[in-house]
Amino acid sequence: MSDPVAEVRFDAARRERLGLPEAVLADVKSPGQLAEAVRQAFDSGGPVLVTRMSEQQYAALPDQYRSRLDYDLVSRTALASDCLPLAGAAVEVGVLTAGSADVPVAREAIRTLACHGYACVEINDVGVAGLWRVMEHRETLVRLPVLIVCAGMEGALFSVIAGLVPGVVIAVPTSTGYGVAAGGRAALHAALASCAPGVAVSNVDNGYGAACLAIRVLSGGGTGIRCGD
Amino acid sequence: MSDPVAEVRFDAARRERLGLPEAVLADVKSPGQLAEAVRQAFDSGGPVLVTRMSEQQYAALPDQYRSRLDYDLVSRTALASDCLPLAGAAVEVGVLTAGSADVPVAREAIRTLACHGYACVEINDVGVAGLWRVMEHRETLVRLPVLIVCAGMEGALFSVIAGLVPGVVIAVPTSTGYGVAAGGRAALHAALASCAPGVAVSNVDNGYGAACLAIRVLSGGGTGIRCGD
Amino acid sequence: MSDPVAEVRFDAARRERLGLPEAVLADVKSPGQLAEAVRQAFDSGGPVLVTRMSEQQYAALPDQYRSRLDYDLVSRTALASDCLPLAGAAVEVGVLTAGSADVPVAREAIRTLACHGYACVEINDVGVAGLWRVMEHRETLVRLPVLIVCAGMEGALFSVIAGLVPGVVIAVPTSTGYGVAAGGRAALHAALASCAPGVAVSNVDNGYGAACLAIRVLSGGGTGIRCGD
Amino acid sequence: MSDPVAEVRFDAARRERLGLPEAVLADVKSPGQLAEAVRQAFDSGGPVLVTRMSEQQYAALPDQYRSRLDYDLVSRTALASDCLPLAGAAVEVGVLTAGSADVPVAREAIRTLACHGYACVEINDVGVAGLWRVMEHRETLVRLPVLIVCAGMEGALFSVIAGLVPGVVIAVPTSTGYGVAAGGRAALHAALASCAPGVAVSNVDNGYGAACLAIRVLSGGGTGIRCGD
Amino acid sequence: MSDPVAEVRFDAARRERLGLPEAVLADVKSPGQLAEAVRQAFDSGGPVLVTRMSEQQYAALPDQYRSRLDYDLVSRTALASDCLPLAGAAVEVGVLTAGSADVPVAREAIRTLACHGYACVEINDVGVAGLWRVMEHRETLVRLPVLIVCAGMEGALFSVIAGLVPGVVIAVPTSTGYGVAAGGRAALHAALASCAPGVAVSNVDNGYGAACLAIRVLSGGGTGIRCGD
Amino acid sequence: MSDPVAEVRFDAARRERLGLPEAVLADVKSPGQLAEAVRQAFDSGGPVLVTRMSEQQYAALPDQYRSRLDYDLVSRTALASDCLPLAGAAVEVGVLTAGSADVPVAREAIRTLACHGYACVEINDVGVAGLWRVMEHRETLVRLPVLIVCAGMEGALFSVIAGLVPGVVIAVPTSTGYGVAAGGRAALHAALASCAPGVAVSNVDNGYGAACLAIRVLSGGGTGIRCGD
Amino acid sequence: MSDPVAEVRFDAARRERLGLPEAVLADVKSPGQLAEAVRQAFDSGGPVLVTRMSEQQYAALPDQYRSRLDYDLVSRTALASDCLPLAGAAVEVGVLTAGSADVPVAREAIRTLACHGYACVEINDVGVAGLWRVMEHRETLVRLPVLIVCAGMEGALFSVIAGLVPGVVIAVPTSTGYGVAAGGRAALHAALASCAPGVAVSNVDNGYGAACLAIRVLSGGGTGIRCGD
Amino acid sequence: MSDPVAEVRFDAARRERLGLPEAVLADVKSPGQLAEAVRQAFDSGGPVLVTRMSEQQYAALPDQYRSRLDYDLVSRTALASDCLPLAGAAVEVGVLTAGSADVPVAREAIRTLACHGYACVEINDVGVAGLWRVMEHRETLVRLPVLIVCAGMEGALFSVIAGLVPGVVIAVPTSTGYGVAAGGRAALHAALASCAPGVAVSNVDNGYGAACLAIRVLSGGGTGIRCGD
Repeated sequence: MSDPVAEVRFDAARRERLGLPEAVLADVKSPGQLAEAVRQAFDSGGPVLVTRMSEQQYAALPDQYRSRLDYDLVSRTALASDCLPLAGAAVEVGVLTAGSADVPVAREAIRTLACHGYACVEINDVGVAGLWRVMEHRETLVRLPVLIVCAGMEGALFSVIAGLVPGVVIAVPTSTGYGVAAGGRAALHAALASCAPGVAVSNVDNGYGAACLAIRVLSGGGTGIRCGD
Repeated sequence: MSDPVAEVRFDAARRERLGLPEAVLADVKSPGQLAEAVRQAFDSGGPVLVTRMSEQQYAALPDQYRSRLDYDLVSRTALASDCLPLAGAAVEVGVLTAGSADVPVAREAIRTLACHGYACVEINDVGVAGLWRVMEHRETLVRLPVLIVCAGMEGALFSVIAGLVPGVVIAVPTSTGYGVAAGGRAALHAALASCAPGVAVSNVDNGYGAACLAIRVLSGGGTGIRCGD
Repeated sequence: MSDPVAEVRFDAARRERLGLPEAVLADVKSPGQLAEAVRQAFDSGGPVLVTRMSEQQYAALPDQYRSRLDYDLVSRTALASDCLPLAGAAVEVGVLTAGSADVPVAREAIRTLACHGYACVEINDVGVAGLWRVMEHRETLVRLPVLIVCAGMEGALFSVIAGLVPGVVIAVPTSTGYGVAAGGRAALHAALASCAPGVAVSNVDNGYGAACLAIRVLSGGGTGIRCGD
Repeated sequence: MSDPVAEVRFDAARRERLGLPEAVLADVKSPGQLAEAVRQAFDSGGPVLVTRMSEQQYAALPDQYRSRLDYDLVSRTALASDCLPLAGAAVEVGVLTAGSADVPVAREAIRTLACHGYACVEINDVGVAGLWRVMEHRETLVRLPVLIVCAGMEGALFSVIAGLVPGVVIAVPTSTGYGVAAGGRAALHAALASCAPGVAVSNVDNGYGAACLAIRVLSGGGTGIRCGD
Repeated sequence: MSDPVAEVRFDAARRERLGLPEAVLADVKSPGQLAEAVRQAFDSGGPVLVTRMSEQQYAALPDQYRSRLDYDLVSRTALASDCLPLAGAAVEVGVLTAGSADVPVAREAIRTLACHGYACVEINDVGVAGLWRVMEHRETLVRLPVLIVCAGMEGALFSVIAGLVPGVVIAVPTSTGYGVAAGGRAALHAALASCAPGVAVSNVDNGYGAACLAIRVLSGGGTGIRCGD
Repeated sequence: MSDPVAEVRFDAARRERLGLPEAVLADVKSPGQLAEAVRQAFDSGGPVLVTRMSEQQYAALPDQYRSRLDYDLVSRTALASDCLPLAGAAVEVGVLTAGSADVPVAREAIRTLACHGYACVEINDVGVAGLWRVMEHRETLVRLPVLIVCAGMEGALFSVIAGLVPGVVIAVPTSTGYGVAAGGRAALHAALASCAPGVAVSNVDNGYGAACLAIRVLSGGGTGIRCGD
Repeated sequence: MSDPVAEVRFDAARRERLGLPEAVLADVKSPGQLAEAVRQAFDSGGPVLVTRMSEQQYAALPDQYRSRLDYDLVSRTALASDCLPLAGAAVEVGVLTAGSADVPVAREAIRTLACHGYACVEINDVGVAGLWRVMEHRETLVRLPVLIVCAGMEGALFSVIAGLVPGVVIAVPTSTGYGVAAGGRAALHAALASCAPGVAVSNVDNGYGAACLAIRVLSGGGTGIRCGD
Repeated sequence: MSDPVAEVRFDAARRERLGLPEAVLADVKSPGQLAEAVRQAFDSGGPVLVTRMSEQQYAALPDQYRSRLDYDLVSRTALASDCLPLAGAAVEVGVLTAGSADVPVAREAIRTLACHGYACVEINDVGVAGLWRVMEHRETLVRLPVLIVCAGMEGALFSVIAGLVPGVVIAVPTSTGYGVAAGGRAALHAALASCAPGVAVSNVDNGYGAACLAIRVLSGGGTGIRCGD
């Protein structure tokens, strides 16, 4: 039977095809598999991003890789230290949260975008129960070509934003909440059933996917990789 | 075996106990059963309300009852002609719809309230995709002790209203929509999972129940019947 | 990227708008975020309520806040010690449970009401399997303008109560039970589908929301804050 | 390929084994198949019962069978005219309905029992929204060894009855209702999650199955067939 | 606010009404509440049964009660030592399992029956994947008035048994299994949709309820308590 | 915009690749599209099979195609008249039904197999409620390499058969039934959760797919087309 | 009570805010309401689009509007005749279908885009069961900035396309299919759970919404209306 | 009451009947029951396979059995050391995974097959997001009579493979993923709703069942046991 570590195949070709570097998804990997995947990611020469990695998994990485990774506990992501966006990068993406429980998902999106050279404006705690909170950011929001909106519970923020701005609104339902909101289904269905036309919906808690979609939009479906330029 | 018509028992005692006259629910009754229930309702001496009645059912009623009923095709309700609210009644309930598909449910609530002597203000087509539509009614909304909000699709209007006003917000999800919104489950879950605290939720399409809840609130849990006073 | 603690924004404006002070929801916050939110709540000058807080979270609060909070293990809530209702307050809300597993949710409602100056009568263990248990409280129940009913399993108590009394009945399904009752969906659907007209339904386990709805009802949609008067 | 009519095999052996004659289920059969099944049922010499048969199907039966069958439009059942219970049979089963929409299912149970020689007492429209309606039958109910309770919507009647009486309570959820009650799932889950111990639950709308269970109980698991004795 | 221990009310009246002594459901109780409930149960003078009690909960009981209880780890039940059936009691109930994972639920039923003086025959591991296993017990099965069948996964055993015997078949779906079988829904639906007529269905894992139903059947809806006779 | 008829592309290449000729799925096609698809199917030179075709659709086909097709009302399929299996073909597939409502799905499988030159033995009405019915065919069943089992309701037949025979058992759940069985989900889950190892499961009502799987098995993954040989 | 026709409010402001003209959703409107909405749409001076309109509804429109509308039976849409894209418009959107049953949804997207001046390339019947069908269009696909992919059944086409091209892939699940595919949930979940990163998901059958999202992308979140330029 | 260990009955007869030796399912067994089942399995003289066994369970086995078992941590299976396939066995089964999270399920299938003497080719990490990865194995795949495909998330790999090869494709959905993919339902539905005809579907995570189905196919429904030959 095959060697578990040998099964790991980092897909560096994806970056060339899609302009979207492969992220290493940590939570389904054994320590050996994770180390091997990170090794291949560094060897590929592209941006290195690890998602859904616990503190324990990060601590167990071989020193030579751990020292080159910036780990963020909130989003449970790590990215290569040389991969952060340049200070002067134009901000093209807004990332919003309805409440503080949505911040980890938002942060996963922000760091995925950072890993590709995109800077974000982060607007937190603007759930619709206090509508004025989001309205005071309206000027900013209408000027951004892409907005990533992270919300759990009833997900009303998706429709409010998509009704206010002409840009691309990417809805990321989060698994925040209890009762009918548990697991994020209520927010997911709210995003899909939105009365505001043209909302782009991601899977629950999929900050990484939302960032990839933002990159597809901003790069015009072209090559568009600006990390390390 | 029992006579199908004899099974009909109009529950006039409910009015005395709860201050909520029994409505005759038409759609599960045969023509004979419906005529008998309407007869008992008129005999009980209280307000007469028939809900979920098709045009065919109305047309098949005996002349003596049909002539005394005001039938509304939009809400598929009939109520006794002498039971409409007096012209000068103070308006204590606002009834809102997100879109025109929610009007039949809203109208069922309005006519149930009318049957008990309550006048309503009706505000239509204020879904959150165009937030200014609801905001221009804000002055009115904050002054009403009870708001019945009817919305299908993603039901974001429930949270927006409940975050704006201090009154009792009764959410009535409607079965408007397709895909994940079909049957009203997305809107129902949005109402239950609302980030605005203290939303009162009804079953899908239950305009009658929402009106009964409004009456419970407005009558202070007392006798409160003002129809025909 | 933003500082996690800086993301915490206690929404003191809600009290002014809705007459419903913001509760601090503990279970989604890190120790640092929770301490910051509690600090802002005390600074806002209004009543302080923390919900869904574990014993560990309470123990980890800075001394200066912990010493001013009354923590209740059953409901996992804390409220500022100076915020309990005056001894002579009129009782306007009844809080019922079907069984002892529903007590934590009922207690969350009671303490939220206490935090706003409302006293409650608490009636426990009156599930319909022994109907006489609830019937012996009937005299009390018909006189209360608001009843909060907490029940899991099949939730039959909601309909029995709403058929007995003219007041506002707020159904809080609880996640008590196993098999089809697990997670509270059976009780939730029973509340929504009740044959008794005008039941107000909350999300599963949402004692806080039920109390907020009770306050909306009792304050007549007005300012209504009596805590600290 | 086989002849569609030849596929029909009336299972007369079931009566010998289980004491439960096979019913002919009409709604999935073509006119030819139905006629053949009815022919075999008469030939078997036992009681003849046809369920879920539309008026059109009944009208299309060959004269020789139609003339020997008593058709009931409410329950959509037919049974052989010589198969009704003797006038003096002791009543051992109570059949209850919460509302008039549950009558068709109750009637299917009553007629299945009639076909086996059991007489029933039928108590209609005793839903828990008006608790006194069922309480006035309490004396009767506690003396019956088997109660078949038919209820849709929230199905609270199952628990109320099973908490009042020591007999076998067979819950038959009905597909009455709309929103979360549509299709009978809310009532089904209420029956399964009942806080009253020992409720026997049937599939939604399965009046025939409930009657078969009653016969199993009353015949003591023995031969027990009394039809035509 | 009320004292948590004072909330415990052991319902001794249930035994008189229904012939079904109240069991103490342990898993939702704190140590103090559990001790109080057990105390009241012993004081009531009837049979004492505790269900869903962990080893830890049993160990934490006060000595005076623990010493009088027979604890069974498999079913997580305890019953008073003087409450076991007499050696010569006639066996009237068969309890079957499809596989060894169903044994805990079966044992809960057996011990509940024992607590009321009923002896059982226990037949394990007769799932339909090896049909001859159940067929070799056929002689025994057809002579028993009540069979409790515990099965998870696809629950095919319910239909096979109910098609073989004339007695009352009580189906107890168990939460055994993974994928679509997880939580017991597949087995529950199989029991409800059985092609064999007259299956009595219980909630998932509800061995206690199945035993209560068996007692209702065997006592003829009468008083029927034989424990301690 | 494209011409609706021009969109029809009969995929003749599938036969070469998979040994499975494309069926024309009628129910989603307009009359013009269906005629075009049938024309292309005849032109391709392979076997012609049309599935899910109503009588009206068949009647509306151009004469030149209708006259060359054998239409079966039970399965709503048509196949080219020159495509039926030779009289002497060895029978390698058994097709079983639990009840007569399952026959249309079974017949779709039989006719798909016929179209490829495979003859079947058809065994109807052998549901497990009468176990002896299936047991009397046991000798036949153990000798067949492939069995297609069609069952609705609780689907217990899948497990019983797969526990009796060493051949490949293909479970086809059918949408027969009401309540929890409606739509075939109960039977589908029973097939997937079967305690008998190695059941191959198809989508609900997918007789065509089951036949394609049988062909994949019998042809050894090779070319295996024997129709018209 | 309000006049049903007066409730219709065509939201012309949406075009200014979002660059997305309001479509008139026909299927929830009465003939009077629909005529009024169409009148307002023409009066607003912008592009006129009516969706989900039956042939009967179109035929019932007043002559003056019907004569100015181009009605398409496949997509059930109508658009103002002067609103079609200019012949020389650059093609920026590809619209793909997996099978012919997905064409109506694709056509709704195409006509919505046409109404805004965007031309599409339409690629039909490229489901993954025949992978070469989609591969032969690969050159075209990689050059388009936006692809709208319409697929029902298992929705595998979404992942295959999103793994091949760098552009924005908008997945539109369709309600094609039976069994677990009925209603489009299987395809919807496939889109959301796609292993290809950055898929934008729409509600089931929402061709209109997908087109709106495409316009948001192509207009760069700007004004971007080119219809009638 | 019965002795828990005595309840264990290893079903050696299954091997004779079906050609499929019974596996010992460990995760539902106590240490005593597991040791007893393993003892019986060795005594039966056939191949010994234990599935879903934790490291702790393996460590707790009596030495005499543990020493004869080869334990694999990835698949959590153990098999008798003398039971591995001969080196020169022809490879007839391909086992594919979409991603590394699917490997444990694939390995359970491979080891079950090994236990019966079948060798496999294992092809990992060929999810459709990078289509070329699977295409480079096409030559191998078309020559294998049976392919076991393990995939979670959206399960698109099932359809792609079944559209490429004529062999039997056994789809094993895995519980990999989050949001709508959690628990494997999205992948399961994709397998059942596949547009490629004739996919054989197993329960989620059921590698053992998939291997049993492969053995049924390869042994031609005959005796076919080659382990230890």
